[in-house]
Formats: sequence, C-alpha cells, structure tokens
Amino acid sequence: MSARRQLIVVSNRGPVSFARDEQGERVERRGGGGLATALRGLVRHHDVTWIASALSDEDRAVAAESGGRVEGHDLRFVVHDPAVYDHYYNVVANPLLWFTHHYLWGLAQRPDLDSELAVAWRDYATVNSTFADAVVAELDARPAAVVFFHDYHLYLAPALVRQARPDAFLAQFLHTPWPQSDYWHVLPEPLRRAVHEGLLANDVVSFHTARWRHNFEQSCADLLGTSPADRGTRVTNHAISVDPAEFEKLAASEAVLEEERSLVASRPEQLVLRVERTDPSKNIVRGFRAFGLLLDRHPEHRGRVGMLALLDPSRQDIPEYVEHLAAIEGEARAVNARHGTGDWQPVDLRIRDNFAQTVAAYKQFDVLLVNAVYDGMNLIAKEAPLVNLRDGVLVLSENAGAHEELGAWSLTVNPFDLLGQAEALHAALTMDTAERRRRADAIRAHVREHDIAHWTDAQLADFTRAGA
Amino acid sequence: MSARRQLIVVSNRGPVSFARDEQGERVERRGGGGLATALRGLVRHHDVTWIASALSDEDRAVAAESGGRVEGHDLRFVVHDPAVYDHYYNVVANPLLWFTHHYLWGLAQRPDLDSELAVAWRDYATVNSTFADAVVAELDARPAAVVFFHDYHLYLAPALVRQARPDAFLAQFLHTPWPQSDYWHVLPEPLRRAVHEGLLANDVVSFHTARWRHNFEQSCADLLGTSPADRGTRVTNHAISVDPAEFEKLAASEAVLEEERSLVASRPEQLVLRVERTDPSKNIVRGFRAFGLLLDRHPEHRGRVGMLALLDPSRQDIPEYVEHLAAIEGEARAVNARHGTGDWQPVDLRIRDNFAQTVAAYKQFDVLLVNAVYDGMNLIAKEAPLVNLRDGVLVLSENAGAHEELGAWSLTVNPFDLLGQAEALHAALTMDTAERRRRADAIRAHVREHDIAHWTDAQLADFTRAGA
Repeated sequence: MSARRQLIVVSNRGPVSFARDEQGERVERRGGGGLATALRGLVRHHDVTWIASALSDEDRAVAAESGGRVEGHDLRFVVHDPAVYDHYYNVVANPLLWFTHHYLWGLAQRPDLDSELAVAWRDYATVNSTFADAVVAELDARPAAVVFFHDYHLYLAPALVRQARPDAFLAQFLHTPWPQSDYWHVLPEPLRRAVHEGLLANDVVSFHTARWRHNFEQSCADLLGTSPADRGTRVTNHAISVDPAEFEKLAASEAVLEEERSLVASRPEQLVLRVERTDPSKNIVRGFRAFGLLLDRHPEHRGRVGMLALLDPSRQDIPEYVEHLAAIEGEARAVNARHGTGDWQPVDLRIRDNFAQTVAAYKQFDVLLVNAVYDGMNLIAKEAPLVNLRDGVLVLSENAGAHEELGAWSLTVNPFDLLGQAEALHAALTMDTAERRRRADAIRAHVREHDIAHWTDAQLADFTRAGA
Repeated sequence: MSARRQLIVVSNRGPVSFARDEQGERVERRGGGGLATALRGLVRHHDVTWIASALSDEDRAVAAESGGRVEGHDLRFVVHDPAVYDHYYNVVANPLLWFTHHYLWGLAQRPDLDSELAVAWRDYATVNSTFADAVVAELDARPAAVVFFHDYHLYLAPALVRQARPDAFLAQFLHTPWPQSDYWHVLPEPLRRAVHEGLLANDVVSFHTARWRHNFEQSCADLLGTSPADRGTRVTNHAISVDPAEFEKLAASEAVLEEERSLVASRPEQLVLRVERTDPSKNIVRGFRAFGLLLDRHPEHRGRVGMLALLDPSRQDIPEYVEHLAAIEGEARAVNARHGTGDWQPVDLRIRDNFAQTVAAYKQFDVLLVNAVYDGMNLIAKEAPLVNLRDGVLVLSENAGAHEELGAWSLTVNPFDLLGQAEALHAALTMDTAERRRRADAIRAHVREHDIAHWTDAQLADFTRAGA
C-alpha cells in the first residue's frame, strides 16, 4: 500500500446522496455505480476530498446549509441550475458522449446536432466551469493535493483548472471505452478538439485497457496532430477492480442468504445469469435472442435451463433509454411466447434495484453472460465469479474491457453474432466439471490478485512517476 | 500515358448489361456507378479483359450463348445461381459490408448475425470462388496479365487466385472508406480475418485517400498483428477522378441543353443542388433538415432559394434502403409543409435516373451540397464543378474522400451538425463573386490536372513499382 496522499477526487456522482424518507427525515444513500464502489478504497487510505454534483433536492439543501461541504464525508457538493444540469447530463454526457464512446449511433439517423445541442454544450461547459471553480478553491486550501478527475462528464474542467493553477497536478481516469478517431467525427471539430485538449491538460490520463489507451494516443495524433507525450501528459492503463473481502462479506450476509434461499427454491436445473443497467451498450436484447436461438438449436435445454436477467433501470429521463427498456421487455416476452410452456418460462426478467438479490444470483449462476456491444471494463465479470459457488462459466464479449484480463478463461463472444453466442452458451452449459473448475479458479485468482487496492496503487504510482 | 498493358479487371458490375426492349430486341445498357465510369479509360488504353457478374436474365442468356464471353466488349460474364447471388449481394455485400465500411450500423440494434448470415457468408464465398475460377482460366490464356480486383464484393477471391497461381500479379482497389479496427468488430473474428487476409493476398492494395489507407494499415496491425509490408503487399492511395473532356462534351449535348432550358425556365433565384443514390451513407435526410434550418434562421432566403434533389433510387431489394427512401420522402414533405407557400416549394425532390438532367443541374447550381456521413470519394464533387457556369460553391463533408483534395476550396461541414450545415449554406449563398470564382477555378484546375488518366497512370505505376 502506497504512502498516505492528499487527493481531490472529482466526479459527477459522489459517494453519497441525500433524500427525505416517509417520516420526512433526511437519509443518506450510498452512491451506486462502479466508480463510487471503486473509489471507496482511495477514501479509506488517503486524505481525500471528494467534489461531486448535488444530484437531489436534498443534496442541494445539504449544500446550502454548509457552504457545499458535507459533514462526515470529506465531500463538497457543487450545485448547478437544474435546467443547465439537465442539458449537461441528459443531452451532452448522455446520450451524446456516452453513445459516442460506445459506438452506439446509427449514424444515418442520429445524432442530429442542432441549435439545442449548441445550447446544451454551453451548459456542459458551465457545469465543468463550476467544477473547476470548486477544484481551484480546494487547491487553495491544499496546494499539494493531486486532483483526480473521473470520466466523460468532466472533459473541460482540467483545462480550466490548469489555466487558473498552472502548477497543479491533474489526473483523469476514463471509465468508458475510447473510440477511434473516425468515430470522434460524430462531434463537430471544435467539440472533439475541446474534448482532447481538455484531457491533455492533465498530467496523467488513464484507461482500463491497453486497447482504449492506444485508441486515445491514436486519436490525439489523428485529430490534434500531437502526442500526449509532446504535451507532457503521461497516458497509462490500469484495469479497475473490486474489493474481494467486501464481496465475501456480502455473500455471507443474512440479506443475501435470504435472497439465495428464495432463488435456490425456484431455480432451474442450470441458470444463465445476466446483471446490467438497462443501457443499450449492454446488449441485453441480443442476449435474449441468443438464448432463444440456443433453445431452437439445442432443444435438450428446454425446460431445464433458465435465463435470469436482473436489470437496473437506467437513465429513464433520456428517450433512447426509455425506448430501449421497452425493446428489452418486448424481446423477453417474445422468447417466452416462443419457448415457454404452462409450467416453464425460459426468461425470468426482473427490472429492479436489489443488490442482495444480485449477489445471491452471483453465487448461483452456471453461466454468466456479458455480451456488451462495448464496455469500458464490466465489473460484473469480476464480482460474480468471486463469490460463485458452482464454478460458473463466464461468456464474455470481446469488446468488454474485462476481456483483456479474463479472455483466456472465458468463452469469447462477438456481441453481434447471435449464433456464436447461442453456441457459446451451449458450450458453457455442457462443459465438463474439471474444465469449469480450472477456468473459474483462474478468474478468481486473477481478480483476488488484481483487486481494487492493486488498481489504486498502480494509479498512485503513476502520479509519482509523473512528478506529483 | 503509360505503356500498353495486359490487364484482367474484375468487378461485380461490368461495363455493360443486357436487356430486352419492348420489341423483344436485345439492348445494351452502359453500366452505372463511378467504378464503370472510372475504368473506361483503362479499357481504352490497355489490353483489358473485364470479368463481371451476369446481372440480368439477358446477361445470363448472353453468357450461355458464348461460354461467358461478350462479343465486342472484352468482357467475360460469370454466372451465379440467383439465390446464391441474392445472399452475396443483398445480405453480405449490402448491407453487411457496405454499412460496416460507412459506420452506418446502430450497433445496439443491428446487425443481428444469425444462421441466415452464416449461409449468406458461404454464398459470398461461393460467388468469390466462381470469380476466382474465371480469373484463373483467363490467366491461363494470358499469364503475364495483371489481375485488378475492385471493391468489397471480392474480398475472398484474391487469396483463392493466389493459391491456384502463386506467381500471378494481383491488385485490388477499394472504392469505399476503410473503417478503423474497432468497427471491424462488427464482423465475428473469422470473417474480419478473412476480409483482411483476402486483401493481403494482393501485391498492391489501393485506396482513394491517405485516411483510408492508414486505417487499413492500422487494422492489419490491430486485427492480424501484421503489416502489409511484412506480407509483401504494397499499400497506396490514389484519388479516382473523372474525364473532363467527356463532361464538357456531355454539357454541350442537345439532351443536356434541352434539360437545361427547362431547368432555367423554372429555377429559383439561387439553386442548392444535391445529386445522389438514395443510400443512407449520403445523408440526404439531414441535408433537407439543414436546408429547413437555413430558412428558419435566415428568412431572407425564403421564396428565393430552392433545393433541387436529384436522387437515383438505390438497392430497393434491401429493407434498409426501402425504409431510407421513405424517410427521404417524408423529410422533404416536412420541409415543404413547414416553409412552402401557395406558389413556392423549397424542396424539389426528383426520384429518377436521368443523367442529362443531372448534367444540366451541374451547370446551373449556385451551391452543391455533399454532406455524406462517410463516402469513399464522391465523384459528384468533382463532376459538377467542372461544368458549372455560375461559380457555384461546394459545401463538402469532412468525411468524403474528396475532402482530402478539395477541402481547401470548399466550405467544410460535419455531416451530423445541422446547424453547421445550415450556416455553411448561408455562407455559400452570400459569398461574394470574387471569392466564389477563386474557389470554383481552383477546384476546376485541380480536377482537370488530377483527372482519370492521372489516376490510371498512378495506379499502373504502382504495379510496375511492385514488380508487375
């Protein structure tokens, strides 16, 4: 474990958010998402101030009471005008940037960059500027702290901080894939330039995988005619991970055991699991189709194998996401209509947010399907095998960041190849016990060794190498 | 002009196709498309045998009468089973490969690679194998001839010819953009490997632009871990062009003059022109939207500026293309409904195939809009300015191959940026005379110097350098 450090972590979503319960009492909710989870280790071992957006009305109330600081959390909320935030989050960050990062546009139809986008981009800049002001204020209190930005919500902030505090040490981690330079042409030249220039204002820019890192280096060359090294920016890659101890504790918790009993009581002979946010990048619809195709081609699985899909509804303020959730539900119904019988439904679709149930399902799967169109990392591919009790097989997209680490012990699938996915599910379901064990053991050993502390140490070592 | 050479040109579509007229007489039709036009120069100056698919029933009849050879044309038809050809052309070549080359997939939804694709890919291989057999037979008659394959219909043929005739000299020209390596992940690994390996069986592989060439070199590195040079393949880029003399002659022809009189009689004060196949890559819908936005933002153009869209219906056997044509018609109606008055309709949409009318419109435009999503070259950007009489301004997509040559004298637009396109149209419509003249002259001079003969010579010089 590296020495204790002063850090200013900056991300749109913070480690906690506030609400009022039914009695009108203020309650704290732990922030969701891989980012918050992953950064918890940092907070534990270093002197961290976290700067994040006030997301709820209650967050704004907390911020108003305390000048932004959140007691007991080393957290500082930045407060945005709700209409400005809406443009920043629901137009620019998602879908514009997210769809671009994941190659999701049907470019013949979308996006249509019009006057609304011009306004929304200004609002994206405004939110970034608000973040930059908060960082500069924090730096004035702790000039030696490293500023550690996260993700695609904050492409413009680093250059603003750099302008105000030329000697500050700035770093940014990208949790998404980095698309290749042609795909950045989805953004008009001034916008794609601003994204790249913003990132190059950092001393260190990091990605999950070598693939995303190389794409970034190439897009700097193709779009800016420069290299990060020429700008004094160190570019690295470190695969984010999970805290095995946390998952082992969770797996043994009463809440999870109760969910597990219920799952075991109703489970099919063999269980294919998928766990996702309902995001188009996750490829849930094709997963159902592939499962239907499996039942067409290998009828021996009918009545014996079930697919459990635990889906967390995501970004339902964005029309593309609303349409997508409807498509997911439609496809699950279609597979059940085609293959279901009076006493057996092949797809068990649960749209909910129940983490205890998720961990229970992690323990019980025989096959875990991760067939993402594109995915920066995919932490489920690491979490689930850690606590699985059945030497379950990981079927993994070649376009998930996790594939760079776990591909050798997974069954690799192309996300668009339904036939290949159906056959990979069949191979996983019929794999012999020794082979399943060998692969599951290897994945567990890898994740235990390359845990979140490993990522944190590697990331902090970058800062040292880059002169922090 | 280079020395006379022996060439075997291989492309799916040949220089002529046959049909029966109303009297039941056999008639010849000149093949359409930029490829046939561009290669006419080759045929004139060198000893060329052309190998192409029999496309019509009458082509098959011609082939049956003569063992494949077409009298008076140095053309040899290869005949395919119609069902096999349908898969090859309407499933694999389009939309699968074409959409991949032009970044057109909405990857969250499409493509869905299933059992039908597996069959269709075998049929694509069968058609390629039929072509390879015809090439080998032709090579046996003329062992010193250079084999010159064209385009994405023939990715597998070169490796088959190479296997049969290891010492043959093989070259291929790609008329489409080459997408970057991530986007090749649309195809499962064995398919994308076969595409790249097929191309690397050539001695020379050529593209229109440095951008597509670099993308190919990078995708060989990323997907195959090799470089063309290591495989003994020379990779070059030469922008295809047109025959200025042919267009000048056409422009003066009676058929064109008649169309021009009709156009002049009804033309608006200023004419914005677009000429396209109804292909999703051409971005016709966004062009209409941008034109509507121009009329919103700059009302002084209302009633004075019209957009003439001369569209050639394309690939109407493919569902995506049928849907797309409907979207084009719908958007034209929407703009006319919004901005049209009793005696003025802003958009004049003509879905037809009338080349004389096209050339007449080339002469008469004030602004030519070429806003392609992606385009290998776009010959209209070269043809139209050549014969234009009004120093018309070229508004050109940054993603059209022609932009690498003509960008300096065009108004560059991002194809997704409606606001940018509307403002570029406004800038073009209000540009002063001297500036229009300067730009139009520069484009004409460039195209005259870099004509089709220039391309042919450069291409043949590559063959010499590569040891043909």
